[in-house]
Amino acid sequence: MIVVKVGGSEGINLDAVCRDIASLVQEGERVVLVHGGSHRTNVVAEQLGHPPQFVTSVSGFTSRRTDRQTLQIFEMVYCGEVNKGIVERLQAAGANAVGLSGLDGRLLEGKRKEAIKIIENGRRRVLRDDYTGTVERVNVSLLRLLLDNGYLPVVTPPAISFESEAINVDGDRAAAMIASSMKADQLIILSNVPGLLRNFPDESTLIRHIDPKQIEESMQHAEGRMRIKVLGALEAIQQGVGKVTFGDARIEAPVRAALAGQGTVIG
Amino acid sequence: MIVVKVGGSEGINLDAVCRDIASLVQEGERVVLVHGGSHRTNVVAEQLGHPPQFVTSVSGFTSRRTDRQTLQIFEMVYCGEVNKGIVERLQAAGANAVGLSGLDGRLLEGKRKEAIKIIENGRRRVLRDDYTGTVERVNVSLLRLLLDNGYLPVVTPPAISFESEAINVDGDRAAAMIASSMKADQLIILSNVPGLLRNFPDESTLIRHIDPKQIEESMQHAEGRMRIKVLGALEAIQQGVGKVTFGDARIEAPVRAALAGQGTVIG
Repeated sequence: MIVVKVGGSEGINLDAVCRDIASLVQEGERVVLVHGGSHRTNVVAEQLGHPPQFVTSVSGFTSRRTDRQTLQIFEMVYCGEVNKGIVERLQAAGANAVGLSGLDGRLLEGKRKEAIKIIENGRRRVLRDDYTGTVERVNVSLLRLLLDNGYLPVVTPPAISFESEAINVDGDRAAAMIASSMKADQLIILSNVPGLLRNFPDESTLIRHIDPKQIEESMQHAEGRMRIKVLGALEAIQQGVGKVTFGDARIEAPVRAALAGQGTVIG
Repeated sequence: MIVVKVGGSEGINLDAVCRDIASLVQEGERVVLVHGGSHRTNVVAEQLGHPPQFVTSVSGFTSRRTDRQTLQIFEMVYCGEVNKGIVERLQAAGANAVGLSGLDGRLLEGKRKEAIKIIENGRRRVLRDDYTGTVERVNVSLLRLLLDNGYLPVVTPPAISFESEAINVDGDRAAAMIASSMKADQLIILSNVPGLLRNFPDESTLIRHIDPKQIEESMQHAEGRMRIKVLGALEAIQQGVGKVTFGDARIEAPVRAALAGQGTVIG
């Protein structure tokens, strides 16, 4: 089986992703699709008068500031607009998709961070009212139940904390956890670039292959959002997923292209 | 098993509804929860600059004008904010809830209306770009699969058309279809009034019992949104559900109150 993660950035061709996945499912492939929704969340948050904020952790990762109101907007976009838009496209393409957030059946369960240490204007600060965390447990039996009965699970953050609060988690790392928990053959991470680039955003500097042993080194090439994708890949490989591919979601048949070895292959 | 429908109007105590259902589920009751989200959809549609519009059909029913942009906002609120808010509350109360729209697994499938005949300023007009319809088929096997495996399905419109478009359907009538398809013992429809009122909004005129044979007559007492609830009840009774109760969702333990015979009992 394969886990496909498709981002929520501009330029991504969701129609092509859904058609491609539906045709793979019809050929008998078992697929779990995980998606994001970051770009639309930014747009809707602006429209609703609660503009997005981003914070940078002391370890250098950028993440969305998620107070309770942001979480509500996040759910509207990720679980409402984007998830149901994808389910509708997949149904139209002939795949019997079922959309689920990490809350549903405690599909993605994890620890809410008690405090986030961030850097703001060059100074350290601690956030305590943020609803973010990391997925530690995947409800594999719910995914298997749906797959075994002919459904295609379409999974989105948020996750659920051990105390049953909705928490914002990174979609790439959630997809990595799903892939390793499900013992997937392959994790395909699609975004609006052709793969990992040596000199971002110069697409001619695409890195074609990374040896799993050298993945930590390759983190130095990863810029911005791509850093967390590489972290997700590292976690998936460490937890036993055979192969991770970074592919391009702007093209036709993007999943088949990644399966055929286009993009950056790790493994 | 029982089907509970809770509306999306102001004044409804969702916390109490969820606590009550979770405790019933823990006692072994099989429950499917269906919910609305009309009030919040109106608020968010205003905020997003696409104010709600309502149309009155030639047969006298009022419904939401659902163009494609309204449908997107509808999904944000019903499937995102409201559905995940309810799932989070139920999980916190110890019930393993799974939220599903009618699109997911084609749970609620029906016919999109090709044209809606409405009355506007006293004149007849035909709408052709509306995404509304009526549920004709419930994916009973998906609901059973979840119930049999210990999950509590939390169902929301929209439904899916036979052509795989999202369509706005009435939540009360969808709940009636679920109740009859699942051969439920009882359908409980909770809203922000104590039940069916002889003289709306005078709550002292609560009708305590309606004989199923006289349900069509009682339609004359139903005002506004309550008319479609009575229509849902009529459909459920005609299709074999033993008992329909209109209960009050503003009180503590609202489901147990309805099960104990409070509200308007039909059957």
